[in-house]
Amino acid sequence: MPFKRTFRVHWVDTDVAGVMHFTNYFRYFEACEEEFYRSISLPFNDITAKFGITFPRVEAHCNFKAACRFNDSFDVIMQVREVAEKTITWDFKAILQGDGKLAAEGSIKCIAVNAKWKAVPLPHELVKVIQEKGQ
Amino acid sequence: MPFKRTFRVHWVDTDVAGVMHFTNYFRYFEACEEEFYRSISLPFNDITAKFGITFPRVEAHCNFKAACRFNDSFDVIMQVREVAEKTITWDFKAILQGDGKLAAEGSIKCIAVNAKWKAVPLPHELVKVIQEKGQ
Amino acid sequence: MPFKRTFRVHWVDTDVAGVMHFTNYFRYFEACEEEFYRSISLPFNDITAKFGITFPRVEAHCNFKAACRFNDSFDVIMQVREVAEKTITWDFKAILQGDGKLAAEGSIKCIAVNAKWKAVPLPHELVKVIQEKGQ
Amino acid sequence: MPFKRTFRVHWVDTDVAGVMHFTNYFRYFEACEEEFYRSISLPFNDITAKFGITFPRVEAHCNFKAACRFNDSFDVIMQVREVAEKTITWDFKAILQGDGKLAAEGSIKCIAVNAKWKAVPLPHELVKVIQEKGQ
Repeated sequence: MPFKRTFRVHWVDTDVAGVMHFTNYFRYFEACEEEFYRSISLPFNDITAKFGITFPRVEAHCNFKAACRFNDSFDVIMQVREVAEKTITWDFKAILQGDGKLAAEGSIKCIAVNAKWKAVPLPHELVKVIQEKGQ
Repeated sequence: MPFKRTFRVHWVDTDVAGVMHFTNYFRYFEACEEEFYRSISLPFNDITAKFGITFPRVEAHCNFKAACRFNDSFDVIMQVREVAEKTITWDFKAILQGDGKLAAEGSIKCIAVNAKWKAVPLPHELVKVIQEKGQ
Repeated sequence: MPFKRTFRVHWVDTDVAGVMHFTNYFRYFEACEEEFYRSISLPFNDITAKFGITFPRVEAHCNFKAACRFNDSFDVIMQVREVAEKTITWDFKAILQGDGKLAAEGSIKCIAVNAKWKAVPLPHELVKVIQEKGQ
Repeated sequence: MPFKRTFRVHWVDTDVAGVMHFTNYFRYFEACEEEFYRSISLPFNDITAKFGITFPRVEAHCNFKAACRFNDSFDVIMQVREVAEKTITWDFKAILQGDGKLAAEGSIKCIAVNAKWKAVPLPHELVKVIQEKGQ
């Protein structure tokens, strides 16, 4: 089942065109990802403490379909697309709560690296829980 | 009674020193202010629609007392300090949830301006509800 | 000839991993695009004043190849990939100045919309100057 | 002689009110401070490498006087106000280039801390250069 969290457009997220600046979708996608790891009791810093890895992003993509404006609330829906040996790719949708319009859909690909920023295989324990809870 | 909302430090809020960048306290103070107006059914955009005013900030101040780090949650506590003819000054505290430490305390002073950015008196109706609910 | 501007990683751009947060590449790509329009004497707001259009982004993509750290300077190199009837797609590269490493490469697709956010054809005059100066 | 750097309001800096969001003044003040340290060949990370200290902010203040809008360029003028045993306080002004209007004036107080975030005296060498070049 996809993971979902609701966010709201803050004043600081908007720009002079009156809409949420496109970079903020990526901020909220990442915030949703943080919430996912928190929901499985493994916030990013615990992953680092436990497995010695961090998750730099290697690719980000988004299509922007409809504008989000100040005070709009929207759901971010997140689902694992692919777990490879060293990478995880997440799909995201941002859905406006008022009219159910798709505001944006995108993906973020993360790679597991060790303390020296060398790519390393994902820990089995993490893969297992992501495959259980993240799709 | 002071108004309170809980926030969490996101990855993007941190800097290379490992702590939340100081500008983000101001972002969360403003987010709390937005929540306050929403709680009285008057989000910023409705205030503009109803009274023809917006609230640019004329002054901001903050003392930073203790670092907030990734994944920390903190309460922002907000209380009106002064309602003058054309301005509202809010006091804010950010309190870390784990140990109850005061992370930051500051204030933001807002001025009511009309569509031409001329300072105008605060609407009585708004003053009344702020004095009832904001302190 | 591609358009180039140099930027520097600010403290606020970094995160707790010690590197520039990935969303900032998109901020600098857009800053470079703003500089391009300024270089042809058509900053975004003049385009709106002159042609009645703005350029919301409909798609953004980026591969992140090497980390940028605090105080690193990097060139953003920007080149038009495609000018369609209503859209412009720009390619971007971020190249670290020290070692010439490719830090990131991506693209942003913009659509011309009128004051009602309806997609409209790009003005010929703008297409001409973009084709001359943007590639 | 005060230290001066010129910045420009980017699209992402603006908000739905059409002006630069107030938090960005603090971002540009800090960017100016970074440029100052770079100008004396001591960027923040070299200060950490050489003296073992970093400079968390303990206080920030700003009065916002006039709006900066997209594409406006403004000078940030920075001058040391006080160098105490463990702290440095900087004054900042943001002056719009078009009409010379004062857009904002504020101050930021920084404290020297060691790797354990314990406040420590400022290195004499640094104090000397700041007193020479920063006022």
